[in-house]
Amino acid sequence: MIRTAVIGASGYSGQELLRYLARHPQFELVLVTSRQQAGQPLGQHVSGLPKKLAALKFTDAAPDAALAKKADLFFLAVPHGTAAPFVVALRKAGKTVVDLSADFRTTDPAAYQEFYDHEHPAPKLLREAVYGLPEIHRARLKKTKLVAAPGCFPTSIILPLVPFLKRKLIDPAHISVTSLSGVSGAGRKLELRLLFGEVSENMYAYGVPKHRHLGEIEQELSLAAGAPVAISFVPHLVPIHRGMLTTTVAPLTDKKMTEAAAQDVLRKAYGDEPFVEVLAPGVLPQAREVAHSNRIQVAARVDARTKRLLLFSALDNLGKGNASQAIQAANLACGLDETTGLD
Amino acid sequence: MIRTAVIGASGYSGQELLRYLARHPQFELVLVTSRQQAGQPLGQHVSGLPKKLAALKFTDAAPDAALAKKADLFFLAVPHGTAAPFVVALRKAGKTVVDLSADFRTTDPAAYQEFYDHEHPAPKLLREAVYGLPEIHRARLKKTKLVAAPGCFPTSIILPLVPFLKRKLIDPAHISVTSLSGVSGAGRKLELRLLFGEVSENMYAYGVPKHRHLGEIEQELSLAAGAPVAISFVPHLVPIHRGMLTTTVAPLTDKKMTEAAAQDVLRKAYGDEPFVEVLAPGVLPQAREVAHSNRIQVAARVDARTKRLLLFSALDNLGKGNASQAIQAANLACGLDETTGLD
Amino acid sequence: MIRTAVIGASGYSGQELLRYLARHPQFELVLVTSRQQAGQPLGQHVSGLPKKLAALKFTDAAPDAALAKKADLFFLAVPHGTAAPFVVALRKAGKTVVDLSADFRTTDPAAYQEFYDHEHPAPKLLREAVYGLPEIHRARLKKTKLVAAPGCFPTSIILPLVPFLKRKLIDPAHISVTSLSGVSGAGRKLELRLLFGEVSENMYAYGVPKHRHLGEIEQELSLAAGAPVAISFVPHLVPIHRGMLTTTVAPLTDKKMTEAAAQDVLRKAYGDEPFVEVLAPGVLPQAREVAHSNRIQVAARVDARTKRLLLFSALDNLGKGNASQAIQAANLACGLDETTGLD
Amino acid sequence: MIRTAVIGASGYSGQELLRYLARHPQFELVLVTSRQQAGQPLGQHVSGLPKKLAALKFTDAAPDAALAKKADLFFLAVPHGTAAPFVVALRKAGKTVVDLSADFRTTDPAAYQEFYDHEHPAPKLLREAVYGLPEIHRARLKKTKLVAAPGCFPTSIILPLVPFLKRKLIDPAHISVTSLSGVSGAGRKLELRLLFGEVSENMYAYGVPKHRHLGEIEQELSLAAGAPVAISFVPHLVPIHRGMLTTTVAPLTDKKMTEAAAQDVLRKAYGDEPFVEVLAPGVLPQAREVAHSNRIQVAARVDARTKRLLLFSALDNLGKGNASQAIQAANLACGLDETTGLD
Repeated sequence: MIRTAVIGASGYSGQELLRYLARHPQFELVLVTSRQQAGQPLGQHVSGLPKKLAALKFTDAAPDAALAKKADLFFLAVPHGTAAPFVVALRKAGKTVVDLSADFRTTDPAAYQEFYDHEHPAPKLLREAVYGLPEIHRARLKKTKLVAAPGCFPTSIILPLVPFLKRKLIDPAHISVTSLSGVSGAGRKLELRLLFGEVSENMYAYGVPKHRHLGEIEQELSLAAGAPVAISFVPHLVPIHRGMLTTTVAPLTDKKMTEAAAQDVLRKAYGDEPFVEVLAPGVLPQAREVAHSNRIQVAARVDARTKRLLLFSALDNLGKGNASQAIQAANLACGLDETTGLD
Repeated sequence: MIRTAVIGASGYSGQELLRYLARHPQFELVLVTSRQQAGQPLGQHVSGLPKKLAALKFTDAAPDAALAKKADLFFLAVPHGTAAPFVVALRKAGKTVVDLSADFRTTDPAAYQEFYDHEHPAPKLLREAVYGLPEIHRARLKKTKLVAAPGCFPTSIILPLVPFLKRKLIDPAHISVTSLSGVSGAGRKLELRLLFGEVSENMYAYGVPKHRHLGEIEQELSLAAGAPVAISFVPHLVPIHRGMLTTTVAPLTDKKMTEAAAQDVLRKAYGDEPFVEVLAPGVLPQAREVAHSNRIQVAARVDARTKRLLLFSALDNLGKGNASQAIQAANLACGLDETTGLD
Repeated sequence: MIRTAVIGASGYSGQELLRYLARHPQFELVLVTSRQQAGQPLGQHVSGLPKKLAALKFTDAAPDAALAKKADLFFLAVPHGTAAPFVVALRKAGKTVVDLSADFRTTDPAAYQEFYDHEHPAPKLLREAVYGLPEIHRARLKKTKLVAAPGCFPTSIILPLVPFLKRKLIDPAHISVTSLSGVSGAGRKLELRLLFGEVSENMYAYGVPKHRHLGEIEQELSLAAGAPVAISFVPHLVPIHRGMLTTTVAPLTDKKMTEAAAQDVLRKAYGDEPFVEVLAPGVLPQAREVAHSNRIQVAARVDARTKRLLLFSALDNLGKGNASQAIQAANLACGLDETTGLD
Repeated sequence: MIRTAVIGASGYSGQELLRYLARHPQFELVLVTSRQQAGQPLGQHVSGLPKKLAALKFTDAAPDAALAKKADLFFLAVPHGTAAPFVVALRKAGKTVVDLSADFRTTDPAAYQEFYDHEHPAPKLLREAVYGLPEIHRARLKKTKLVAAPGCFPTSIILPLVPFLKRKLIDPAHISVTSLSGVSGAGRKLELRLLFGEVSENMYAYGVPKHRHLGEIEQELSLAAGAPVAISFVPHLVPIHRGMLTTTVAPLTDKKMTEAAAQDVLRKAYGDEPFVEVLAPGVLPQAREVAHSNRIQVAARVDARTKRLLLFSALDNLGKGNASQAIQAANLACGLDETTGLD
């Protein structure tokens, strides 16, 4: 058993992480922190935990050496910008860290500064951080002790695109991406726009034209393409609690590529992946199909009229887009079977 | 008062049409037909009608000369493909017809055949039909007796794009359109996929790559561009009852165009329109804002990184995307003030 | 035209009041206050207003003589407990006041103290306040200048019960009431429990056993029964934005009363009311049917097995349960036709 | 491993049963039937199954001896009225049967006839059927081979009431029950009233005054009370996919009973139950808390003003109200630990 801590577990992704960890046979939850809920039992805030865990109490914790002694594996579910001090302290003590914030996702400090408007707080650690997409960086994840776990937008965009970029099958200059996000992706915050009365029977685009996660998305797409890639990206909020759907349009380089060939590209890339479901011809991804799971559904279509490739993906923004994928990456970093605790 | 009939009013758009007509000061509802509900009072199926109208009974009606005598203005809310015989009979009798189906929206019979897979049933009448977008075809609508009223997808896509195409401000070869549709857009049909249990907490793309309304959309875009335009179009179903949101991405021809200039294009085109709301800088369209209205919200953004124009629109798919816009067009065809009965 | 002001219009009911007032042919909106939104145009916060009104700006206002000069009719949409100073100042100046808070709904200061835990701030004014249920207090509303407009729970409970209590047809000792409330009833507040993520796919009872609106409910029921009535009342929150459904169970005094006779009681009481819809046998109230309207649907059933009467009602908690009913009462207090501006 | 079959698995409860069985360590799913979907793989209709199960195909099956040979444990998820022939054939062959329909829930054939309007098809088998509420009939369930698994309404009503009826703490003559049901409780049927467009932003009571499940509910309540009990029961449909909330009001026999004492009654009855969560003072059941689980939350309140007991419960109508509770009962009937496969 690996002594495991969750730092900052009062939000939706922290709660989901606790639910997944409760079922994990190798990660033993020994510490859960939350500044706001310190002193209260987990069960008061998180439903569906087994009785023993429900009785465990949230504590408060500073990013120091004392904290590092309390566990061997640390999941950080704190807001962007506040993870770095924890990472510094915990890595200094040699601990394995899975950071769910954006702090260590961009390998280039300059790119970080461009999208987050301030200097990176610990640029040296960027070199050892591995972007936590197991399907892309599996080998490196097995050797790192610092996982920069990606969120829902990057996961849903990068996975379907990478195989086509790698093989130069699409024109990287004209990629247009639209994502539909469930409301939990915006977090559990006291903001008027997140009230039921504002969200139900509503939908809108936001965060355009330069969403702050574009930096890491384009970093990974450029890596696959072997050249800089800049995309159009328009996120939308829709009235569901959990779920993300991404639709991507890009010109085919081979104007005669068939739909069957496009589907084959996905099947070759992901056919053996335990958590990627390449859909059969005629079927498109649905958010409901992947809810409460670590799976992502992907599908490809060819628009013969316009010679464009259409890519589709669906995932649970709290699952494969967040908490459960962090566990998948942690399994790798800890030398466990990748699917441990994930059904 | 103009004696008015609604043919086929059992669906969501037929019901909405009845609600709008109930408030119209010049259109007097004298006949409402529905094969399924013949003999039953309107109030049994449509909420919110005044008592007198609620007591009126649905009848059944064949497309013949007898029907034509019963009213002077006919709204056809029957399924695509079944409107043509009614149009033939009613136009023969000289009546004004507003057809909410797709039967007379494409001016070219060949385009109709391409998207609907059968010959057009009354190609001669296509010449007198005017596409029912008042903001685009106002002058012609004032002189026609056959309005081909567009649906929600075309309205939400065509209106924001036309001013940019007319002025050659975007590259028509790389237009990518994504639409999010409320469930009422799919109609009031007994299909498993429309059950609450299948739709709630779900969303998915569908109808790709060649949605059957693309024909009329590209016809209108080509007209504006003065050259053939083919677009990528991906519709999505989201769990709201009414509402449509459309996001369009296209490369700017002038790479230095500013966001302010782009917003100006919309303001010049639509600033005086009674039902087009050009949003202020910093505000994006929201479905909830236009629900139960004949308004469409539009906004423009410039993505300086990729030199692309982003266009956004929101409308009520039963309102400006359907029933109330049909009344707006009918007002013009009947020589009334365009806003009559529309608040 | 009557110069009209709305005090405190930033919540859901204030917004709805503005939408109704915008359509009212006799009430001219000249002043709208909101402490939080002072200086901003109405259109920035309330959708669907005509352009002129959308451009009007929120102001801030103290409850003083200066305020009283600005209009002749005042709607108070401020929180419970904060309306009294406004009422005092405005009544002193002879103005007509429609108070949507609970401050003047209980005629007995002791009852107020029991349910609100503090002394009534202006007990003398309680004598001139008339409870704003037109179907019950029409004659008195025509003669008052201080309307205490009821909220959604009282309206939905009192209207169906009163005719049966008046005729002693049910045993007042065993009345059990259950209400289901849409989320907008809880207001537009920054509370975690009102987030979309907490409300969607959720429901729960709350406010038991002594909801603070019970005082006014039992006051009106006792008035009808001619004797003190105490009921069980359990409100529930359900994931809809607007709507209220109330189900009442009570033992019949005449064990042989038929369902037809029970339905007749409602029909005789409300058959001529413009806004009460007594449903036909076999039909039960539905929230969707009365959304965005000033109507209430009511129905009666008899449970022959247990000799109990079942009463059902549905209304829009922002309409007949709040804003539009306040206008209905204001029409009476101002000597207008009761239905003015309400369709 | 026990060879297990599911008969009729195309509805929501059949699908949920398959998801739970997929995780069960002792029940090996060897046969799944569905008339409509025969020949198609499970994965085409049920999301979230492991690959091996997803590839298994639905078959069609008649209720005969050949079917009985294919498994040792049979779950029947067929419509009410169609289970009996399967039960007869399978019990003849000595197989263990868990029937999720209502066919064997009433022990008295006359009661069956009263609520279902036809003679019971296999009255002899009623004697060996045990009502599948483990918390009430655990001892008998361990000895039976025919489980009549109850649905969501009975489970949510019976469990909180039984301890109070057994101890004569409430007056059984005045019990009033209100239930709020998620839409999946109505099944996966092609009915207009179940469309998203009819259900969203809507709610209504139905099935009054004599819901067909009242027979079994009153049977179990009478058993606990030691005398015939007849209740008022009003079910409501609310726009959530899964979940059930029940509120019960009944006069206390001891008018001085405290809330603490009432809560103690629940704690004594269910404190050790693995799937009953007796809530702490101040907390009321919420549907979201028990979604996707076999848990039921219960709570008691005392209304000191009216001397009444208020009982509350929440469960997942596809979980503890259906599929997972059927597995809980099957575990007992098969001699396994009751919690096997249920987390």
